[in-house]
Amino acid sequence: MKRYERLANQLSELINRGDLPPGGRIPSIRAACKAWGVSPATVFRAYYLLENRGMIKARPRSGYFVSRTANELPRQTSGPTVQSGTKPVNISELVFEVLHTIRQAEIVPLGSAFMSPELFPMARMGKSCAAVNRSTDLATMVDALPPGNQALRQQISLRYLMAGMTVPVDEIIITSGALEALTLSVQLLTAPGDTIVIEKPTFYAALQAIQRLRLNVVEINVDPVEGHDLAALARALEEHPVRACWFMTSFHNPTGVTLDDSRKHALVELLARHDVPLIEDDAYGELHFGPEPVRPAKFFDRKGLVIHCGSFAKCLAPGYRIGWAAAGRFAGELERAKWMTTLSASAPAQRAIADYLQHGGYDRFLQKLRRELTNRQLQMLDAIRRYFPVNTVATRADGGYFTWVELPENIDSLRFFRAALDTGISIAPGPIFSADGAFRHRVRLNYGHQWSAQLETAIATLGALCTDESRCGARLAGPLQPVSQAV
Amino acid sequence: MKRYERLANQLSELINRGDLPPGGRIPSIRAACKAWGVSPATVFRAYYLLENRGMIKARPRSGYFVSRTANELPRQTSGPTVQSGTKPVNISELVFEVLHTIRQAEIVPLGSAFMSPELFPMARMGKSCAAVNRSTDLATMVDALPPGNQALRQQISLRYLMAGMTVPVDEIIITSGALEALTLSVQLLTAPGDTIVIEKPTFYAALQAIQRLRLNVVEINVDPVEGHDLAALARALEEHPVRACWFMTSFHNPTGVTLDDSRKHALVELLARHDVPLIEDDAYGELHFGPEPVRPAKFFDRKGLVIHCGSFAKCLAPGYRIGWAAAGRFAGELERAKWMTTLSASAPAQRAIADYLQHGGYDRFLQKLRRELTNRQLQMLDAIRRYFPVNTVATRADGGYFTWVELPENIDSLRFFRAALDTGISIAPGPIFSADGAFRHRVRLNYGHQWSAQLETAIATLGALCTDESRCGARLAGPLQPVSQAV
Repeated sequence: MKRYERLANQLSELINRGDLPPGGRIPSIRAACKAWGVSPATVFRAYYLLENRGMIKARPRSGYFVSRTANELPRQTSGPTVQSGTKPVNISELVFEVLHTIRQAEIVPLGSAFMSPELFPMARMGKSCAAVNRSTDLATMVDALPPGNQALRQQISLRYLMAGMTVPVDEIIITSGALEALTLSVQLLTAPGDTIVIEKPTFYAALQAIQRLRLNVVEINVDPVEGHDLAALARALEEHPVRACWFMTSFHNPTGVTLDDSRKHALVELLARHDVPLIEDDAYGELHFGPEPVRPAKFFDRKGLVIHCGSFAKCLAPGYRIGWAAAGRFAGELERAKWMTTLSASAPAQRAIADYLQHGGYDRFLQKLRRELTNRQLQMLDAIRRYFPVNTVATRADGGYFTWVELPENIDSLRFFRAALDTGISIAPGPIFSADGAFRHRVRLNYGHQWSAQLETAIATLGALCTDESRCGARLAGPLQPVSQAV
Repeated sequence: MKRYERLANQLSELINRGDLPPGGRIPSIRAACKAWGVSPATVFRAYYLLENRGMIKARPRSGYFVSRTANELPRQTSGPTVQSGTKPVNISELVFEVLHTIRQAEIVPLGSAFMSPELFPMARMGKSCAAVNRSTDLATMVDALPPGNQALRQQISLRYLMAGMTVPVDEIIITSGALEALTLSVQLLTAPGDTIVIEKPTFYAALQAIQRLRLNVVEINVDPVEGHDLAALARALEEHPVRACWFMTSFHNPTGVTLDDSRKHALVELLARHDVPLIEDDAYGELHFGPEPVRPAKFFDRKGLVIHCGSFAKCLAPGYRIGWAAAGRFAGELERAKWMTTLSASAPAQRAIADYLQHGGYDRFLQKLRRELTNRQLQMLDAIRRYFPVNTVATRADGGYFTWVELPENIDSLRFFRAALDTGISIAPGPIFSADGAFRHRVRLNYGHQWSAQLETAIATLGALCTDESRCGARLAGPLQPVSQAV
């Protein structure tokens, strides 16, 4: 093969794979000579060949571009591979199957952890982002370094104040979403082989962190109505050398349940007696449906033992990845961990959110958002009542956008998940929410999307599947493989 | 104490601490009643008291604001505490002492790891940031999820192509700077108790990661002229069950040395024979002074064993925190690790950089930047020659902005560091670059700042300190405490 043919084939491959996208510019003859160490004639011949194949186009005085029609093969999607219901299932794989459905726009996202963003003040937020990031200087860059943007931390402290809590600015560390606050905290507080307490069911990131950090866990049941089993926690604290407790005390994911003030108080006191830190995931805290804010457990903390992890991802600016930890006595250590793992959270996003909080009308927006979510919850629960079998039970939370649905006993939620996906609907199957793959008759549904005919149809389809034992029956379901050997 | 006095004192405290900043708005009477569960009269009395104390001001029809002069105490800075030279020093503490000097604008930042940003196309970058982030939609938010913004990954792939490398888009995972790519990679490839190979001297984040992940290390000497000792690496690979190798092969931090092509090739082959992955930190790769790009070791990789970690933080947009890993065969696993620790890198920053790379004139900017850095290097080395003792040796790198300075043997770099800080100059003392606190006669100086009379004076001051045995002499220096028990 001649040199120019080799070069042409190499470029073809990149174009076919979509790495050089249709309409995109390719290197100039001169730049290509330099890059590949070949003569202009070789590059010219290679480009000529590609032009003849219809893959690139020369535009006078502009250079060479990939043809709009060059890439005729459909792009590969990283979608879920549907497995047979009788094969063993790895929870970790399953989590990624669910997560990957989020990237697919054509799938009805009832399994997603995100709310649809059309309610968010995207335009107003974009205005803040554009306004404060038109230029940057050294001071801005430095201000974003841990513990994070000073104005943003002051605004967060002020919001605590409005909720009747005094949380000093010095205690607040800005992170890449609440998720980083949570994962850094658990990493900070534990060594491999240590034991932590988590919820059952729990947010799957907790399971992943346990696996990654090689921790042992004690799972505390979370009842969809009663909340966390504090008596079981008390026993666990007596029996095990617990290093930390990772709980979501308000609008718990996936059940939606909220511990009331007196039980939150009792939780904090109980942990304080054992000197065990509480990592409190409060990502959904602002999404309360009642008129009053829901107090986090942090409110009752007197010893600085509660690391309260908040975020703007679920209630203002998804994708910006700005969260924080109000880290009590662990603030200094957490700041150092942040320095050493990802340095700062993105400066333009920190500045944009600080500006929005100062000038954007956050409280007005939140009021509207809460009203709308209340409404969506009603519609979703009503549709479930109409379309699902009568022995279905769906929880009704006081905030957030999840309902935890108990299916009839003859239905297996994993087979249900796969059958639903075949019809273009994602749901979050119960087994992704615990280490041992329990909750095989549960699914989490997301009602954070605008109610529509499409959603109505989707719920109707799911309801019909729920009576189809040949596709979703429990008797055919295979055994589950635990998420990790360590737990 | 009356209720309103208690409330007033609580607010005073927040104002004095700067948590409620001068000029900032405080809650309205109505909001305050609601937040603290007190009567309007109580809030009014508390605010009246604060007004009398001159701490807040009422503005007609606007509400209450913190007085501009309310916070009379100087703000506390989190500056370094200068320790006596004879006390044992913990390397980890020392790293944070150096890092904290970055936040202090009044200190001459020769110890910083950042270049001064006035050369960066801040305005053009801000224009991109503003233009693409005026609004946001679901697609944008979803596109930022791992592996990251498609257009950005295509641009990165194209830049590899221009350097003569074929790196498919699928292999590229966007991260929060190169640092996250590095720390996620090492976490992915190791379990506690595993052994990895690092450099000596090395970037201090590597030492921190080892401590955090409880790894054992084999250190390979990096000669400021010859580079990495590959013979020692070969022996280490024979003798130890090495799980990964973390090297900076171009413009190494702190020495500035670059492995040439043949040695990079040899390194990759050597590791391939033992099937050991290379985590290649190439954060400074674009800052080459010669006309040709410097090839990373990744160029020679045939087995997908090299995880090439790049960043825009050092060469385009500091503070945006956008980097990537071209992760070879580990791309899938790294994508999952990213999902589970910090989710996506910030969407506005990803979009802004993708836009800039497409339209901003990156190559023109880089050429200008490289010329300017070459110039700054000359000025710094010339000043060192003029002001430092004759037996000082400063390395001259082919790229980046660090020189690794060998001081006279009678000077201790830790005492030198503290004495310099007393005069308002930060330097990076040698001991922060190794686990055992070696390099007590070395310092790293940063020439990434515009040459000025202030810098000239700073170098003169450092030069004078270098001859002052009473302040910086080696004989008085105390023992060093190793960075970690694990290494």
